Amino acid sequence: MPKVIIVGGVAGGATTAAQLRRIDPDIDITIYEKGRDISYGNCGLPYHIGGEVAERDQLIAATPESFLERDIIVKTHHQVIGVDAGSKTIQVKDVLNGGTFEAEYDYLVLSPGGAPRTIPTLLDVPQAFVLHSLEHLDEIKAHIENKNIERAVVVGGGYIGLEMVENLVRRGIRVTLVHRAENLYHPLESDMSGFIADELEAKGVDVKLNAEILDVDGDIATLSTGEEIDAPMIVAGIGITPRTDFLKDSDVAMNDAGYVCVDQYGRTNHEEIYAVGDAIETSYQHVDRPVNVALAWSAHRMAYVISNQISGDKTAHFEGLLGTNIIRFFDYDIATLGLEISELKEYPHFVIDHKQKNKAGYMADSVPIHVRLHVAQSDGKILRAAVVGTEGVDKRIDVLSAHIRLGGTAMDLANIEVAYSPPYSSPKSVLNMVGYKTMEKMNRLKDG
Amino acid sequence: MPKVIIVGGVAGGATTAAQLRRIDPDIDITIYEKGRDISYGNCGLPYHIGGEVAERDQLIAATPESFLERDIIVKTHHQVIGVDAGSKTIQVKDVLNGGTFEAEYDYLVLSPGGAPRTIPTLLDVPQAFVLHSLEHLDEIKAHIENKNIERAVVVGGGYIGLEMVENLVRRGIRVTLVHRAENLYHPLESDMSGFIADELEAKGVDVKLNAEILDVDGDIATLSTGEEIDAPMIVAGIGITPRTDFLKDSDVAMNDAGYVCVDQYGRTNHEEIYAVGDAIETSYQHVDRPVNVALAWSAHRMAYVISNQISGDKTAHFEGLLGTNIIRFFDYDIATLGLEISELKEYPHFVIDHKQKNKAGYMADSVPIHVRLHVAQSDGKILRAAVVGTEGVDKRIDVLSAHIRLGGTAMDLANIEVAYSPPYSSPKSVLNMVGYKTMEKMNRLKDG
Repeated sequence: MPKVIIVGGVAGGATTAAQLRRIDPDIDITIYEKGRDISYGNCGLPYHIGGEVAERDQLIAATPESFLERDIIVKTHHQVIGVDAGSKTIQVKDVLNGGTFEAEYDYLVLSPGGAPRTIPTLLDVPQAFVLHSLEHLDEIKAHIENKNIERAVVVGGGYIGLEMVENLVRRGIRVTLVHRAENLYHPLESDMSGFIADELEAKGVDVKLNAEILDVDGDIATLSTGEEIDAPMIVAGIGITPRTDFLKDSDVAMNDAGYVCVDQYGRTNHEEIYAVGDAIETSYQHVDRPVNVALAWSAHRMAYVISNQISGDKTAHFEGLLGTNIIRFFDYDIATLGLEISELKEYPHFVIDHKQKNKAGYMADSVPIHVRLHVAQSDGKILRAAVVGTEGVDKRIDVLSAHIRLGGTAMDLANIEVAYSPPYSSPKSVLNMVGYKTMEKMNRLKDG
Repeated sequence: MPKVIIVGGVAGGATTAAQLRRIDPDIDITIYEKGRDISYGNCGLPYHIGGEVAERDQLIAATPESFLERDIIVKTHHQVIGVDAGSKTIQVKDVLNGGTFEAEYDYLVLSPGGAPRTIPTLLDVPQAFVLHSLEHLDEIKAHIENKNIERAVVVGGGYIGLEMVENLVRRGIRVTLVHRAENLYHPLESDMSGFIADELEAKGVDVKLNAEILDVDGDIATLSTGEEIDAPMIVAGIGITPRTDFLKDSDVAMNDAGYVCVDQYGRTNHEEIYAVGDAIETSYQHVDRPVNVALAWSAHRMAYVISNQISGDKTAHFEGLLGTNIIRFFDYDIATLGLEISELKEYPHFVIDHKQKNKAGYMADSVPIHVRLHVAQSDGKILRAAVVGTEGVDKRIDVLSAHIRLGGTAMDLANIEVAYSPPYSSPKSVLNMVGYKTMEKMNRLKDG
């Protein structure tokens, strides 16, 4: 009976274990998780602070006990500190009790995830938090309740920061957002993101742009602008780094940024070692280019692929990523897919920009949707898409994703047969119109 | 300069005229419309009664005057009563002033649309209406206002009837729905449509199933059940028939039901005669089978194809229809695509039935979505899909439509990379799970 060891028990790791057990009732599965908990809804953590997830325990999909019932052994507080691919062993540290031991595997699945970044200034500040685990959530909630927190500082204007801001505001906490750059939410084109600052102002959030926290003294933080602000709670939401330090003495191949490189089967450079989740580098689906993005969809898909590979069904594979993503920011939905803005310059392309009502324009509650495509000049391939609005954005990005995946071009969007009725679309939908616009643009380019 | 005559000035006809002018500034365009108005949002009519379209005139996209500014001649109250394809002439009746005349064309575009059906009992009943034109809307509104209507009867539980019920209820009118069959909304699988009766009850609508109006005396209607009901206003919403009587002495090819048959270029059996809109028979996109459905999306798409064909761009073509459609019924969205239920029996298939929350299940406002696919046994092709729920249905049907159009199978739904964040989806979305379920089903079929 092959022995499978899984490093990391959250999204990718837990899903791989569950799926593997589903396929194979007998295979030997052990999960080592450095933290206290496994299999919780990481992406849902902020929404419990805001109250949309009513009960904390709703975020927990499985426990070591529930996994044991399915004959999956889970060792929490057990940190894997080394991998020896030659002898097929790992070194494990028992975090609570001390001591290390070795364990042998036939298949190893790496799902270490990312470590939340913070800033050195905040390292020893007792009221500074990150939110990346259930433990973090419990700490933050305890702090809010014990200290009766009414004001908070959020550091970082990316997706983690914005979700944090929204949920603290929903909880009734007055928020100051400190962001070190000029533009908020850098995954979105800066000339499309002006509404974020407006929305922050409308919700009473103090925004400090081009600012960093230089020092914290008691409950007062001093910014690089010289300003002092109330900071009885600080949450840093400035991204993650792959938690792959433990692999540095192994010869598991990683890219320069420390992401584990995998192929379409989730395999590393070692036949028996797979990797999944936020710490991997895979490829784009639509262009030949490596990518590492921390997205739950791909973790779940890769977990499926890996569990099938290990259990002997070699047909399952990972097609690569479009990087389809969305965040809600108060009334707005912000979605993108495809190449990052910084990657576009290597691809000759033109831009199609389009605004149209989400439903029949005569409906009283119709609202505009803004779509921007970056389209390859040679063949009309959609390299990148951004969609922003207050309703129906998720529909348009998902349709784009399905369309691009099967080879649909920007021109071909004209042919998508949408479900039309006045409450849902125009007869020529937002995406149809983008298709027609692209056809005209392509014809102009051809003509001269 | 070629002379184009368009028969019918609503959706298909008006759109063809506008697009043709856009492509060709010089081509000679005349529209004959038997009614009073052109280019109004037919699908939006009920929503003005309900108040979601605030102003009646918002429903009007173009007028004879605005078309004249673009050098498109519009003759309203002019009914085309005959076509002679040999001499390329039509016979036109001047409805208001009497008299008929001939007009010559180089290209003829038929967009006569459908005539709303009613029942013989209602023909001479002054308070009986249909709602298929702006004239009808004006009549209904005048009746409601002049007679201070507080109760109404809607005949027909199909999409027209249900939209009518909803909008009358929104206006504060107490409605009795008379439906001649047992099941409401026959385009949907009867075992999925139980919520419609519940919703009607919740909104205070009196529902009379298996019933017809046999007689109307003053404001009292007698049903086939013997029951007498208050009927100071009656609206029949029982479908349309193609308005193609005027073609019966022409040799323009029609099917048995009177729909004009067209090819992928919108062309009839005559090179110079095209047809568009609710009165045409075209083909399904995903299976080789004729279909006639009255959908605005296809009218707009076909108008684009025809105008390009006439103006010399022969590349544009109509791919066929999936019949993707949706209606809102109070809190519910009801969407289907593909074959009608009655057509399925000719195709060996199995059913995949799936219910899942529209977003992360731990979100307080997550609601279930019900998806049913009819999947071809041989290759996993999606023959038909039905989606029902109270949120996110339009997204799923549009993704399915885009997916099927480009050859995606039911199994392949597992690979669609959805935009995941807790407010929008699960990491394994509703459609992903349907894909995984289909794979399992296919494997079981193979194994045994």
